[in-house]
Amino acid sequence: MLDQIDLTKKMDKKAYKERMEEMMPQLSRLQRECKELGIPVMIVFEGFGAAGKGVQIGKLISSLDPRGFHVHAIDGESKDEKLRPFLWRFWTKTPEKGRIAIFDRSWYRRVLVDRFDGVTTAKELEYAYEEINSFERQLTDGGYVIIKLFLAIDKKEQKKRFKKLMESKSSAWRVSEGDLKRNREYDAYKAMNDEMLQKTDSDYAPWTIIEATDREFATVKIYSAVIKALSDKIESVKKEKERKQKEKTAQKAESTKPSENEDTVLRTSSLNSVDLSLSYTKEEYKEKLEKLQNRIQELHGELYQRRIPVILGFEGWDAGGKGGAIKRLTEKMDPRGYQVNPTAAPNDIERSHHYLWRFWNTVPKKGHIAIFDRTWYGRVMVERIEGFCSKEEWMRAYKEMNDMEANWVHSGAIVMKFWLQIDKDEQERRFKERMENPEKQWKITDEDWRNREKWDQYEQAVDDMLVKTSTTYAPWIIVEGNNKYYARIKVLQSVVDAIEKRLKDEEE
Amino acid sequence: MLDQIDLTKKMDKKAYKERMEEMMPQLSRLQRECKELGIPVMIVFEGFGAAGKGVQIGKLISSLDPRGFHVHAIDGESKDEKLRPFLWRFWTKTPEKGRIAIFDRSWYRRVLVDRFDGVTTAKELEYAYEEINSFERQLTDGGYVIIKLFLAIDKKEQKKRFKKLMESKSSAWRVSEGDLKRNREYDAYKAMNDEMLQKTDSDYAPWTIIEATDREFATVKIYSAVIKALSDKIESVKKEKERKQKEKTAQKAESTKPSENEDTVLRTSSLNSVDLSLSYTKEEYKEKLEKLQNRIQELHGELYQRRIPVILGFEGWDAGGKGGAIKRLTEKMDPRGYQVNPTAAPNDIERSHHYLWRFWNTVPKKGHIAIFDRTWYGRVMVERIEGFCSKEEWMRAYKEMNDMEANWVHSGAIVMKFWLQIDKDEQERRFKERMENPEKQWKITDEDWRNREKWDQYEQAVDDMLVKTSTTYAPWIIVEGNNKYYARIKVLQSVVDAIEKRLKDEEE
Repeated sequence: MLDQIDLTKKMDKKAYKERMEEMMPQLSRLQRECKELGIPVMIVFEGFGAAGKGVQIGKLISSLDPRGFHVHAIDGESKDEKLRPFLWRFWTKTPEKGRIAIFDRSWYRRVLVDRFDGVTTAKELEYAYEEINSFERQLTDGGYVIIKLFLAIDKKEQKKRFKKLMESKSSAWRVSEGDLKRNREYDAYKAMNDEMLQKTDSDYAPWTIIEATDREFATVKIYSAVIKALSDKIESVKKEKERKQKEKTAQKAESTKPSENEDTVLRTSSLNSVDLSLSYTKEEYKEKLEKLQNRIQELHGELYQRRIPVILGFEGWDAGGKGGAIKRLTEKMDPRGYQVNPTAAPNDIERSHHYLWRFWNTVPKKGHIAIFDRTWYGRVMVERIEGFCSKEEWMRAYKEMNDMEANWVHSGAIVMKFWLQIDKDEQERRFKERMENPEKQWKITDEDWRNREKWDQYEQAVDDMLVKTSTTYAPWIIVEGNNKYYARIKVLQSVVDAIEKRLKDEEE
Repeated sequence: MLDQIDLTKKMDKKAYKERMEEMMPQLSRLQRECKELGIPVMIVFEGFGAAGKGVQIGKLISSLDPRGFHVHAIDGESKDEKLRPFLWRFWTKTPEKGRIAIFDRSWYRRVLVDRFDGVTTAKELEYAYEEINSFERQLTDGGYVIIKLFLAIDKKEQKKRFKKLMESKSSAWRVSEGDLKRNREYDAYKAMNDEMLQKTDSDYAPWTIIEATDREFATVKIYSAVIKALSDKIESVKKEKERKQKEKTAQKAESTKPSENEDTVLRTSSLNSVDLSLSYTKEEYKEKLEKLQNRIQELHGELYQRRIPVILGFEGWDAGGKGGAIKRLTEKMDPRGYQVNPTAAPNDIERSHHYLWRFWNTVPKKGHIAIFDRTWYGRVMVERIEGFCSKEEWMRAYKEMNDMEANWVHSGAIVMKFWLQIDKDEQERRFKERMENPEKQWKITDEDWRNREKWDQYEQAVDDMLVKTSTTYAPWIIVEGNNKYYARIKVLQSVVDAIEKRLKDEEE
C-alpha cells in the first residue's frame, strides 16, 4: 500500500487555518456524542520514525476534553508485561464505553520495530497477525471504533529530520541507534510495514495512510479521518438503536412465539453418558488426597521456577461442588503463587468494557496459577439463556473464547477447563440439604431454584459449549460429580497429570 | 472437538420413523422457500472413511426436488484442476441463487486426506486454513448458507465396516489402501481432523458433528441440522427484506441528503501527481514496440514451459487506451496461450452467482496468460458509485479481492494490474474524436458522457482502490496515458520486466 502514495502533498497555511477552524469544534462535538452514546474509541498512531506522531497526537487532543481520553505511549515490553501474554497490556488498556484511548505506537510494535530488531521470535510472528486481527475484530464486534493512522515520510525526509534532531542537545536523545538503523535499512523496514498494512487492513478496522511530509496536510488529514470514522459510527449506533426500538415494539405483539426447539435427543456431547456412579470411599479419598496435594505442592514450585503460567476454569451445575474442589486443589499450595478469581455478574466498571476484558485483567503472571470459579463461559450459558446478550453475540463467543485461550497458550500457559457434572436428583438433594443446614443456608437462593427450572436449556447450552470449545490446546474435563470425593480427586489428578506432561514435554 | 462426543448414541426404528415423517416434507418445503427467496445453499459432508457419507447424502436428497440440487463427489485433483489455484474447482461449483450444492468431501480434502497422504505441501498447508476461511466468509457474506456436517465413527467401528465391505467382491473396491492406513493410524488422522474443526468452526459457517455409529440417529441429526440452518436463514432473509422495505420508505422522505463529502485535497494515491506529459515520438515507439513484442513472444514460450500462469488486469478512464494497449501486448503472442476476457455488466447467470465467481471461472491454466479488459475492480468503482452494491459490500470487497489475488499468487501466478491514467481534457478530446470518426462512433455512448460527469466520484474511488489493493504480490501499475505511444510501451515493458524478474528469481 505504501507504493501508491504521494509524499509531496502540501497544504498552505490559509487553507489549513480555514479547515481547522471548522474541524476542531466538530471533533469536540463528536467526542461528546460518543460519550453520550457510550461508544468506546481507540486511535492508533503508527508510522516511520520522526514522521511526527507526537506532534500530531498533540494537535488531535487539543480539541478533546481531557477528562475523556488517555494517551498510551507504547515502548518495549516492561518486565511485568513480558510475564503476560502479548495482548494483555492492550486488553487492559481498552477504554471504557464513551472514552477515547490514543496509542502512540501500539500492538503493531510486535510486527514492526520488535520484528525488525529481532525481539519478536519467528514463532511469535507466526501467530501475531492472527492474534492482532482477532483482537480488533472482537473489539469492533463489541461496539468499539478502532481508527488506525499510518504516518509516512520517505527515507530522505526521515534522514533530514533525524539530523536536525541530533543537532540540538535538547532533542538528540530522541534519536536512537535503532532509528538510525531503520533509516539506513529503510527499504527493508518499509517492506515490513507494507506487509503489516496488507495483512491488517480490514473492513472493521481499516488503515488510513497519512502523508506526513507536510505537517499541516497531515494534521488536516488526521482530523478528517477521525471525524469521518466517529460520525459514521455515531450514525450507525443511532440507526441501530432506532431499529431495536421498533423491533421491541414489534416483538411484543408476537411474544407468544415458543422458545427455540431444544432437541435433547440429538445432543452431541458425552455429557449424559458419563458414569455418575463413580465414587471413592472416605479412606480411598483421604489417601489419594494427601498424595496428590503433596505432589501439587512440589509441582507448583517447579512451575514457578520454569515460569509456566497455569489457568484453570471451573464451571458446573449449581451445587456441583466447584468450591469444594477448588478448596482441595489449593489447600497446600503456596498462597503467593496462586489466585482464585470468583466470577459473579459483572459490576458497573466491568459492564462498561468488553465482556472479556475482566478475564484479561486477571491473566496470571508466568509461573503463577489463576483459578476461575465460574468463567468467561458465562457468555454462552447464563447470558445466552437469560437473553443478556444477543444470539449473534453468544454464537460469536465460542470463537472469541477459543482465540483468547489460544493467545494464552501461545504465551506458554497451561489452560484447562473443568465441568462438574451432577444429575438433577443429586442437585435437589444438595439444595435441600443446604436449606436444612443453617451453616449452608446462605449458599442457596431463590435464583438457584429458578435456574433449576431451566435445567434443559442449560443442558443444551453446556452441550454446545463443551463441543465448540474443547480444543486440543485447552480441553474441557468432565468431572463426574455425584460423589464429591471422586470429583475432587479427579480434578487434582487431572491438574497433576497435565503439569507433569508439560514438564516432561519441555525436557524432551 | 472430537473428544467430547458420545459415539454410542442410537435411535430406535419407531422414533426414527416418526421423526422422518415429520421432517421430510419440512425439508422439501424449505427447499422451495430457498428457491423463491434466491438463497444459494452449500452442504458439505466430511468425516471418517466408512462413516456413511454416501448413504446419508442419499437419504438427504430423497426429500429434495432433483431439479434444484447437484451432488459433487470430490476426489483428488484432476490434471486440469492441478493447473489451477486450489479453490478454483470449488468456486466454479458454487451454486446459483436458489440452488443447493452438496459436497461429498470438499475443499477440506486439502487439510485432511491430502495432508495425511503428503499430497499437500507444507507451504500449501500454511495458507490453506486462511484461504478456506476467507472462501467461506466471502460466500456467506454474499448471502450463501454453508452447512458443514462431520460424520464421526471410532476406530473399532471403522475397522468393522471396512472388513465387512472387503468381504464382498461387489464392495471391496470401495476400501482403498489409504482407508486402511488411516484406520491403522486413526489417532494421528483424528488429530488432523480435530485441528481442522477447531480452525474452521466459525459463526458464519459452523460445523455440526454427526455421531454416525447408528445410521438412523445420524440421518435424523443431519436432517435436523439442515432444517435448522435453512429455517434460520430464511427467517433472517425475510426480516432483512422487510427492514430494507421500511428503510426505503424512510429514505425517500430524507432523499435530499447530500452525497458523501468527497475531499479531493486529502486523497492518498499518487494518481494526480503522475507526469502525463511523458511521451514517445512515433519513431521511438516503433523501435521499442518491435523489440518488446519480440521479447514477449520469447517469454511467452518460457512461461509455458515453466507452467507459470499470468493474470493481467486492465482498468482506466473511458477512452484511456485499454484496448490499444492490450492489442499491442498480444499482437505477436501465440493465440493458443492467452485469452482476453472483456468484463461487461454481469449477465443473468453471472448475477445469480457471487460477484467474484465469473473471474474465478476464467482463471488461466498454468503456463497461460489471462488478460482482463476491465476487471473485478468494477465492484469498487462503477458498482460503488452507481449504488449497485451496498457500502458494506464494496468496503468488504478490497479484502476479498486482495485475498483472491493472493490465492492466485500462492498457486504460482504472476498478477499485475494496470491503471490507464488520462486527464479530463484528454478524455474530452478523445470522446470528440470518436464522435467525429464514423469508424469509431460505436465506441462512444451516452453513458460515457454521463460517467464523465461523475469524474470526481470516480477519482475518489480509484484513489481508494489503488491504495487498498496495491499489494507487494499483486501491484497496481499506473500508466501515464495521455500519449498512447508512451502508455503502450510502458505496459509492455512492465510485463516483460515482471516476467523476467520471476524467471530470474526461479533460477536462483
